[in-house]
Amino acid sequence: MKPVNAVIWGLGSMGVGLARMISGKNGIQVCGAIDKQPEKAGKDLSSVTGAPGYEHIPVARSLAECPLEDADIVLVATASHVKDVFPQVMEALSNGLDVITTAEEMAYPWPSEPELSKKMDEMAREQGHRVLGTGINPGFVMDLLAVMLTAPCAEVERVRVTRTNDLSPFGLTVLKEQGVGMTAEEFRRKAAEGTLEGHVGFLQSIHMISDALGLNVDRIEQSREPVISSVYREEKGVTVRPGMVAGCRQTGRGYRKDECVIELIHPQQIHPWMENIETGDFIEICSTPDVAVSIKPEIPGGLGTVGLVVNSIPLLFKARPGLLTMLDLHVPTAFMGDFRSKAGFLSGCGHGND
Amino acid sequence: MKPVNAVIWGLGSMGVGLARMISGKNGIQVCGAIDKQPEKAGKDLSSVTGAPGYEHIPVARSLAECPLEDADIVLVATASHVKDVFPQVMEALSNGLDVITTAEEMAYPWPSEPELSKKMDEMAREQGHRVLGTGINPGFVMDLLAVMLTAPCAEVERVRVTRTNDLSPFGLTVLKEQGVGMTAEEFRRKAAEGTLEGHVGFLQSIHMISDALGLNVDRIEQSREPVISSVYREEKGVTVRPGMVAGCRQTGRGYRKDECVIELIHPQQIHPWMENIETGDFIEICSTPDVAVSIKPEIPGGLGTVGLVVNSIPLLFKARPGLLTMLDLHVPTAFMGDFRSKAGFLSGCGHGND
Repeated sequence: MKPVNAVIWGLGSMGVGLARMISGKNGIQVCGAIDKQPEKAGKDLSSVTGAPGYEHIPVARSLAECPLEDADIVLVATASHVKDVFPQVMEALSNGLDVITTAEEMAYPWPSEPELSKKMDEMAREQGHRVLGTGINPGFVMDLLAVMLTAPCAEVERVRVTRTNDLSPFGLTVLKEQGVGMTAEEFRRKAAEGTLEGHVGFLQSIHMISDALGLNVDRIEQSREPVISSVYREEKGVTVRPGMVAGCRQTGRGYRKDECVIELIHPQQIHPWMENIETGDFIEICSTPDVAVSIKPEIPGGLGTVGLVVNSIPLLFKARPGLLTMLDLHVPTAFMGDFRSKAGFLSGCGHGND
Repeated sequence: MKPVNAVIWGLGSMGVGLARMISGKNGIQVCGAIDKQPEKAGKDLSSVTGAPGYEHIPVARSLAECPLEDADIVLVATASHVKDVFPQVMEALSNGLDVITTAEEMAYPWPSEPELSKKMDEMAREQGHRVLGTGINPGFVMDLLAVMLTAPCAEVERVRVTRTNDLSPFGLTVLKEQGVGMTAEEFRRKAAEGTLEGHVGFLQSIHMISDALGLNVDRIEQSREPVISSVYREEKGVTVRPGMVAGCRQTGRGYRKDECVIELIHPQQIHPWMENIETGDFIEICSTPDVAVSIKPEIPGGLGTVGLVVNSIPLLFKARPGLLTMLDLHVPTAFMGDFRSKAGFLSGCGHGND
């Protein structure tokens, strides 16, 4: 029986990571790739990704240029916002394919984009296919893992998640989005104007936690503060002198009336070790019983997002059709065996049976 | 619409905890209780459990004595082994009810009891109902949580989980099963004879992890060693003098050929603080990337098991019929809202729709 066939749309660092991880897995393969950038389109996928075995796959400019006869799923790693990936998701669905995307807002798309979400959900149900957004954050550390850690609890009063991580492995675009290398004044001006991207995902994570636990959050507040360096730091050609911005400390709070029931704290910076800052993921559930979890160092963002996307593929095929979230799947795990068996392709169950 | 109605079978500390937790939840209630012990049967459930609102429910001696017209699910907290809860599970299924049990072996019953498992699975499918075993361990800390923490990982080489916990809150039966108060000689003799119960669940946890991750474990080894106290300890009338046994350090290893790919280490003792032993749950995933998690103190066993059973109820109603494990459900979470909405009872989906 043929392996699960995936098309990768977007060959930035996430798309390249997806191609590399899939090349090491059993029962799944990449059957096509799309990137509109002229330095990638037309080349073969192995030369673009450095992963062997893709020499026969030319990078296409669009889904229409891609051979789709064997394709099962499209992995969309092109943008962060629902509105930007919406046309790609709809095109993939209309071709009878499932979709997983790394777009942060797609991890819980309904609250911020109800109309586009409704259209994707309707199209997915009509076609009998599934759409999922996932990644390390949003999608796992600051939401899904936190809600699963409440499973032993009777009453939950408050959830607090802190993710202190190293931005150094990320590309230049991400560093700029987080304000690395700005003066404090420039950072604060852009934050006030709303032109500093920062971390995309707190609205999604807070809504996911609130809905999963029934916490009835009715108001969300966010803030972005500069992480001011007291030492010289440098990364990807961006220089940070003492007094300048090494990263962004983003905070999100979900309130039920006047009570803060969800608090997310996410300081991201380049080279945190230079000021002896310990990185990690920290989850505190204030409940009966209390649960306090530390993951040190933090689960790395890039590798973690790639892992979550690939590992969610077999679970997605067993879920109901529609626009889904990680709450609609079985517990996600890595899988060393044949992806077709985990997806139910080999047992005669086929797609869509649980 | 009527709430979810649960029957509790077995009013030991787990059954009492279930009654208390459910009394604080919305959209779910206890509609019956069973215990054959003469000091409980015939009394009202409030006087047996200390939970208010159950004064109208007499404790029955058997399921046949229980009014079942409104019942949806039976929570079986009577024993640890599949063979002991099997008749209770079958009787509940034949009455058209779902079942969740705290019986440790039921958390992953197929490997140790394939024939009884097949019978329960067939009966559940015929009846269109579901059977699940869950609890803090097995069912969560040393298996389900560990496998979920691999979701960001590409390759997993090894999983190690250590649970160092305090036995003091448990009852006298549990203390005796773990060898508390024995001489080291007596402990070792009973362990060699196979008459020291120790922790039940390592076979189940190792098989669950191996199957979930595709690690192909082909051999499992277990050992039980005494935790020798160097100070005087005392609990529930059991005295432990220096040199005597304060608990049991159980180890389980799953091998693929000669390689240990899963290691579970579980030292349990009364009053670990008396020798400055830090309790906690520690999960190490040796993988790409590595993941190292600490939960301090450990998630408490009694409260945690009660939480997992009650919180799994709404997920169970949305799962397919059959003999299930936690791997067959959506991600479990605490829930502060109306259990009927989470179970799909209010949306018109009803049972069995995902």
